[in-house]
Amino acid sequence: MSLIKHSESLTSNSLRQRFRTVRDFTMQLCEPLTPEDCCLQAAPFASPTRWHLAHTSWFFETFLLKSSPGYRVFDPHYEVLFNSYYNTIGEQFPRPRRGLLSRPSLTEVYAYRRHIDEAVAQALNAGRIEENPQLANIIEWGIQHEQQHQELILTDIKYLFWQNPLLPAYRESSVPLLASPAVRSRSTPPAPLWQDFSEGLREIGHAGQGFAYDNESPRHRVFLEAFQLASRPVTSGEFLDFIDDDGYRRPELWLSDGWNFINAEKLTQPLYWFHRDGQWQEFTLAGPRPLKLDAPVCHISYYEADACSRWAGARLPTEAEWEVAAANAPIAGAFVDTLLPNNLPVHPRACHAHVRVVMQDDRDGKAPREPLGAPHLNHVDLNAEPFLGNIWQWTASAYLPYPGYQPPAGALGEYNGKFMSGQMVLRGGSCATPSTHIRPSYRNFFPPDARWQFSGLRLAR
Amino acid sequence: MSLIKHSESLTSNSLRQRFRTVRDFTMQLCEPLTPEDCCLQAAPFASPTRWHLAHTSWFFETFLLKSSPGYRVFDPHYEVLFNSYYNTIGEQFPRPRRGLLSRPSLTEVYAYRRHIDEAVAQALNAGRIEENPQLANIIEWGIQHEQQHQELILTDIKYLFWQNPLLPAYRESSVPLLASPAVRSRSTPPAPLWQDFSEGLREIGHAGQGFAYDNESPRHRVFLEAFQLASRPVTSGEFLDFIDDDGYRRPELWLSDGWNFINAEKLTQPLYWFHRDGQWQEFTLAGPRPLKLDAPVCHISYYEADACSRWAGARLPTEAEWEVAAANAPIAGAFVDTLLPNNLPVHPRACHAHVRVVMQDDRDGKAPREPLGAPHLNHVDLNAEPFLGNIWQWTASAYLPYPGYQPPAGALGEYNGKFMSGQMVLRGGSCATPSTHIRPSYRNFFPPDARWQFSGLRLAR
Amino acid sequence: MSLIKHSESLTSNSLRQRFRTVRDFTMQLCEPLTPEDCCLQAAPFASPTRWHLAHTSWFFETFLLKSSPGYRVFDPHYEVLFNSYYNTIGEQFPRPRRGLLSRPSLTEVYAYRRHIDEAVAQALNAGRIEENPQLANIIEWGIQHEQQHQELILTDIKYLFWQNPLLPAYRESSVPLLASPAVRSRSTPPAPLWQDFSEGLREIGHAGQGFAYDNESPRHRVFLEAFQLASRPVTSGEFLDFIDDDGYRRPELWLSDGWNFINAEKLTQPLYWFHRDGQWQEFTLAGPRPLKLDAPVCHISYYEADACSRWAGARLPTEAEWEVAAANAPIAGAFVDTLLPNNLPVHPRACHAHVRVVMQDDRDGKAPREPLGAPHLNHVDLNAEPFLGNIWQWTASAYLPYPGYQPPAGALGEYNGKFMSGQMVLRGGSCATPSTHIRPSYRNFFPPDARWQFSGLRLAR
Amino acid sequence: MSLIKHSESLTSNSLRQRFRTVRDFTMQLCEPLTPEDCCLQAAPFASPTRWHLAHTSWFFETFLLKSSPGYRVFDPHYEVLFNSYYNTIGEQFPRPRRGLLSRPSLTEVYAYRRHIDEAVAQALNAGRIEENPQLANIIEWGIQHEQQHQELILTDIKYLFWQNPLLPAYRESSVPLLASPAVRSRSTPPAPLWQDFSEGLREIGHAGQGFAYDNESPRHRVFLEAFQLASRPVTSGEFLDFIDDDGYRRPELWLSDGWNFINAEKLTQPLYWFHRDGQWQEFTLAGPRPLKLDAPVCHISYYEADACSRWAGARLPTEAEWEVAAANAPIAGAFVDTLLPNNLPVHPRACHAHVRVVMQDDRDGKAPREPLGAPHLNHVDLNAEPFLGNIWQWTASAYLPYPGYQPPAGALGEYNGKFMSGQMVLRGGSCATPSTHIRPSYRNFFPPDARWQFSGLRLAR
Repeated sequence: MSLIKHSESLTSNSLRQRFRTVRDFTMQLCEPLTPEDCCLQAAPFASPTRWHLAHTSWFFETFLLKSSPGYRVFDPHYEVLFNSYYNTIGEQFPRPRRGLLSRPSLTEVYAYRRHIDEAVAQALNAGRIEENPQLANIIEWGIQHEQQHQELILTDIKYLFWQNPLLPAYRESSVPLLASPAVRSRSTPPAPLWQDFSEGLREIGHAGQGFAYDNESPRHRVFLEAFQLASRPVTSGEFLDFIDDDGYRRPELWLSDGWNFINAEKLTQPLYWFHRDGQWQEFTLAGPRPLKLDAPVCHISYYEADACSRWAGARLPTEAEWEVAAANAPIAGAFVDTLLPNNLPVHPRACHAHVRVVMQDDRDGKAPREPLGAPHLNHVDLNAEPFLGNIWQWTASAYLPYPGYQPPAGALGEYNGKFMSGQMVLRGGSCATPSTHIRPSYRNFFPPDARWQFSGLRLAR
Repeated sequence: MSLIKHSESLTSNSLRQRFRTVRDFTMQLCEPLTPEDCCLQAAPFASPTRWHLAHTSWFFETFLLKSSPGYRVFDPHYEVLFNSYYNTIGEQFPRPRRGLLSRPSLTEVYAYRRHIDEAVAQALNAGRIEENPQLANIIEWGIQHEQQHQELILTDIKYLFWQNPLLPAYRESSVPLLASPAVRSRSTPPAPLWQDFSEGLREIGHAGQGFAYDNESPRHRVFLEAFQLASRPVTSGEFLDFIDDDGYRRPELWLSDGWNFINAEKLTQPLYWFHRDGQWQEFTLAGPRPLKLDAPVCHISYYEADACSRWAGARLPTEAEWEVAAANAPIAGAFVDTLLPNNLPVHPRACHAHVRVVMQDDRDGKAPREPLGAPHLNHVDLNAEPFLGNIWQWTASAYLPYPGYQPPAGALGEYNGKFMSGQMVLRGGSCATPSTHIRPSYRNFFPPDARWQFSGLRLAR
Repeated sequence: MSLIKHSESLTSNSLRQRFRTVRDFTMQLCEPLTPEDCCLQAAPFASPTRWHLAHTSWFFETFLLKSSPGYRVFDPHYEVLFNSYYNTIGEQFPRPRRGLLSRPSLTEVYAYRRHIDEAVAQALNAGRIEENPQLANIIEWGIQHEQQHQELILTDIKYLFWQNPLLPAYRESSVPLLASPAVRSRSTPPAPLWQDFSEGLREIGHAGQGFAYDNESPRHRVFLEAFQLASRPVTSGEFLDFIDDDGYRRPELWLSDGWNFINAEKLTQPLYWFHRDGQWQEFTLAGPRPLKLDAPVCHISYYEADACSRWAGARLPTEAEWEVAAANAPIAGAFVDTLLPNNLPVHPRACHAHVRVVMQDDRDGKAPREPLGAPHLNHVDLNAEPFLGNIWQWTASAYLPYPGYQPPAGALGEYNGKFMSGQMVLRGGSCATPSTHIRPSYRNFFPPDARWQFSGLRLAR
Repeated sequence: MSLIKHSESLTSNSLRQRFRTVRDFTMQLCEPLTPEDCCLQAAPFASPTRWHLAHTSWFFETFLLKSSPGYRVFDPHYEVLFNSYYNTIGEQFPRPRRGLLSRPSLTEVYAYRRHIDEAVAQALNAGRIEENPQLANIIEWGIQHEQQHQELILTDIKYLFWQNPLLPAYRESSVPLLASPAVRSRSTPPAPLWQDFSEGLREIGHAGQGFAYDNESPRHRVFLEAFQLASRPVTSGEFLDFIDDDGYRRPELWLSDGWNFINAEKLTQPLYWFHRDGQWQEFTLAGPRPLKLDAPVCHISYYEADACSRWAGARLPTEAEWEVAAANAPIAGAFVDTLLPNNLPVHPRACHAHVRVVMQDDRDGKAPREPLGAPHLNHVDLNAEPFLGNIWQWTASAYLPYPGYQPPAGALGEYNGKFMSGQMVLRGGSCATPSTHIRPSYRNFFPPDARWQFSGLRLAR
């Protein structure tokens, strides 16, 4: 099967183990939630938790189990109710109305999940995988699919709780979110460092053995001019400088669509930021708390990322630049599957306090268009601030097919290909992404006005 | 207190009893509902059940308990969260967003209700009523208010379940909704009879001792021309004749706003009607079932009622005509507080099978504009088909103040007065109304496009 | 023909004269306008001048000429293009798109008018009227119809020019709009006087011989409680007091729909008012100028009229009260057919400076809710401030059929009857109304949020 | 000045000549239009002709003349009225309201144009160009800008006339649009030929001496895989095959946004196509006429172009592929400045009747997904169907900055840069483009749902 590229031995045993782990983790994510939390939909772009729970099960039922001999469909209504967007499969209950379904109840959806879990386990036990390696691919795809929805469960529930004046916490954290004092002096931000990349013909796209989505293929050559990339994402403290420098009121910093967007929506700060008691606060999955200035700014739209980069005298990297830079990056940042079991809040962690290198001559030459102007170093340990994990990073690239891209045959062809218009690529994975889900070639994508994901930026120039 | 008119002995005892009965009945209404059912909002004009549960308690807390010495507010957030529209009280959580609140949970709202129940009971025990008769008035108002929301709980939950392709039943009924065969011949509807009323100066508005809302006062004189009123509401079978006679496609039958409305919404039948397996069905609180042709048509807008009356060569009665005719009507129709405890479905019951009087000469003279043309009798027992109960009846009257109307002082002045624009008056009470809540002078009101109430029509001419 | 009630001798001669006068006056109204002015549509509720010119001709063509032997239709396309809302006639070009038609040109429409004028003249010459009195009725109806559109031409062009930052004048006036200083002291408004009307059974509706629309019939009895009516409309100066007293910011003064309306539209003053150079200005058909404080306030919605009346401790009169009071009023106010030929601006003229009667005892007793509180006199010369002319006066009455109302048969049945929902009645006629078009029983109607007519208020209580 | 790259001798003389020619051609375009035609706006994305006339003059006034010594501003109001989107210049009259301005009149705007023409001529006479070469650049930019609006005048007026049921012609043509019979057999379309391009590092972007916009720079290297490009655009006849093959009803052919778009708008054919008398017709600038099957399909959105390419088993070319193929293309297609003076209709001309090469083996192997499947030839004379002229060709490329792109300093920096989001690139120029305005590196851009431009497609694979 050309669409899934991996050659590692997908034995029934290892697959069974991974399937169970991922399915269990979804349940673990829902532990803090009430039935009411699970059935509400805060916006057309979000979905109820219960819908996520059912849809990820529907995925296995539809693509794997329905064609299995002897499989009994759990409930024929579910085919329509929990189909997200697969026209090839058939009709879909309209997305904006997912929050109007009080039935099936959470209990019934849990039963549905168990039904699917057992049926998939049986399929794995029955040795069918060994007979038909194609099935392993579908299970793997279903696992990856479920991991995407794990992140969406968290971002959607955060957005839901944000609508509630009570500002409830998804999960209180036993560890304070900020060990250090809440408000650092903003006069001494640890300046980012710039790493140089030389021009040349490079390769991007998925290579190697592990799983990758179709949209990461084919691996192909791109010519890149020389560029520089910042050693770490822009922090909330730096974004506050952008705000304080009238960033949201200066049209020359914005794309035309972005300027219209922030004015129509009356936006003056990232999503989840608010002012209370004379202090900047942010709403997190652990509830409201003082704004963490040294963490990467997130919950901003592409437009805000773009404007902030222009204000900083820089720009967003293309996805090719980003991928070349991140090609060998370790999976070292904050991820949901390490945060949650350790009872840490699902929130971007602070950027490491780099040794600050302020060279006088650079300071002196700081141009007004370059407020984040940073010392220029050729040898920075980029791993100090991981490319993977913590926040998604908007790139300057529209989400388009790679040269020679072919969507998979059948309904899975709708998974990625048909969304290749009107969206921008994000890279890197966030604190809400499972660490086993991310890789340097991973292409996430959202419309340029999306703000409810953990989306921030890294500067290029 | 001039706004509440009743002189019956409102002793602590009788009030305590009524308060408990009404509050308990609200709980009884919620028994079939899950936590998820209770938190969803299907449309901006509807509210989640849980909101109704909290708001009716908020009403007692705000208007009665807050000023009580020693009363402890349950949760200060609730003042805003559960304020419906009282600007005098303060800010309100926006109505269209009531369905975005997963917290406080149903359990917490039940605790809130118990807290209020106990505090009101204490107030009644403490003899404060005897000291301050004003308090009795407020409790009475709160009881009536809660009864209005009992009806809304049912109509809102029906509308919610209608959004769900599973078409769940609010409560299965042990009694079949239709004893008789589902589809009667439509060729022999029991024709309505016309009762004559002579011209003259009449009085309408609340009189006497019981409770009435401010909008039913003052009682005043109106001059009425002679008119006739049908002995019973228009049935679903007759409305089907209207549909089959192209009623929804003939602009000459419609008000201009109505014609625009049905075309913009693509309406071709009452809300909750649908075609399945070659048969007309209707969705009820007991689930879907064959359309009951001999029951009053309901879930129609004012526009549809008006068009149907024009098609029938008749018109809607004014509220004054209706009230004069119903002045001495007994409380004899179907009401929620008799249906539910008897395990009967909350649905309009069939019109009695009047002895059909078809006079040949009348038949012959039937004009094409008068398809419901009915024999004309002067002496009909109107009680055979009650004015009160079963369905609300749209009148031809806009909802406006009576001559000399004064809203009550304070926040309760917002209860009725400020809605006196853009709405039409309905009379009679429905199968979802508590029987102790209705009276001939009762003025219900909804915008002319509202369809989710149990609203039908009675012809006049 | 029952629908038009008049018995005066409608000879061909008198009709011919009136027809020509009215048609000519329409042309006179258009003299100051360019072809561009005539083809734009500033809002869905307004129409281009050229459309008015064509539609009024279409009216004669459709209802009178088409059935005439030998009549040649000017252009078959016009049947659809210039049909306003007559479903009985056939399809209509959508109202909100009337401003998208650059063709037929103004020249062609003028040719269309001449074509119609000649054909009507021929019909009148041919003695057909004497043979068929019905035709006279239709011509009369067409004349009245054209007069309505004369007013709309002015109100629509005013609204169009208001969209233009150049604020062009429809017609410069040779007479200054304000002889007196622009801003009078607002501390001494000439207080209105109250006239008493006793309770009793009254008659309203059209009586007598002249033309009246179907909606003014049948004349019928109403019972009225005793009431008082102010001797003159509320002035702009008094409305400024309402504004300065936070009238637009106090929800308790507003109907719920009105409060939502002014907040959604961010309204804080009447249409056409604006602040410039520290002074209140208003935009008039003669261009912008200082606000005329002693003229009746106009260009306000029903909601604003209602709120202002509540602020004044009064209310709006019902249409029955108004008509009883105005029953014998002379046609004495400002009208377009006297203003325009005298080169006077089409704008409400100032209220006469009544001798101000301030009785000390009344002053002392002035309640805070009654800022317009006025001395109470039984014998006021109400004619001093005419009921007819100057401004339309919002009433408290919804636009509904009179008891026994029957629309005319055929397409003219759509003229008035189908609009009897969602609108409020206005009475009196304005400075943009032709004086030969108005009468005490005349019922004008607009939605409660309409502001672009010359609509103000007169207080009742 | 880095932003405009040309070194040809821009003497006052040649510039003066070009300026006059372009300005005159604008006037020539308006000759068939009435004042009414010139002031209407059919959609928010279109503008009135008169606005184009004024705005192009405003451009010279703002960027060239205002800073000229002694220049007298024509009317200070125009600065806001005719500013399109330059925030750096100041406030703008809102774009969707441009059609609400009946003043200044067409006559006044013509006077404004003459005023500007004279002032620019004076500047050129005065020898200021020789002193300040920068001015020549600005005039050149203004000329190019005006040419863009010449095309918009035509596309906007076509869209306006399309709203009018009279379907007026912009200009009758003395030459019949179709010499050949209207409906050719659709069974024998002249198959397109594929030309091969080998992989390799290529250069795109503006090079050389002539004028180019900032967005065409810098010239830079891109790596291209081997690809094939069709020898001509897709014709209307072929697009009809797509329609007849249920193209608009098969979701698998569409991008998700495109599928939503055509369903929301109920689209089933290109803009301006309609069915009448059992025949496909299209509305053209010469009025309605039978659909010209052998001309390139145009007036389709990016979504439709993309779906049609997928149906054809091909894809859209990237802008880099297109530019590499078109690099040496002659300016040989249909352009407005040759069509109009020769009294030819401004409409795409037919594709040349290539000798049809049907190879049997190819026919046999034609897959159902490749209905346009064409013989494969290496040596096709691509010039037979020009790359430049006739229709704009949608590419698969989002409109984004080239590597190292810098917008010009000042207000002209807003010309192109801020629109680099949410749009797709089109290449080639159309029959409404002036031939002196186009070049292979020219990047046009529109949102993916835009249909009112002369936009079609050329296949790649």
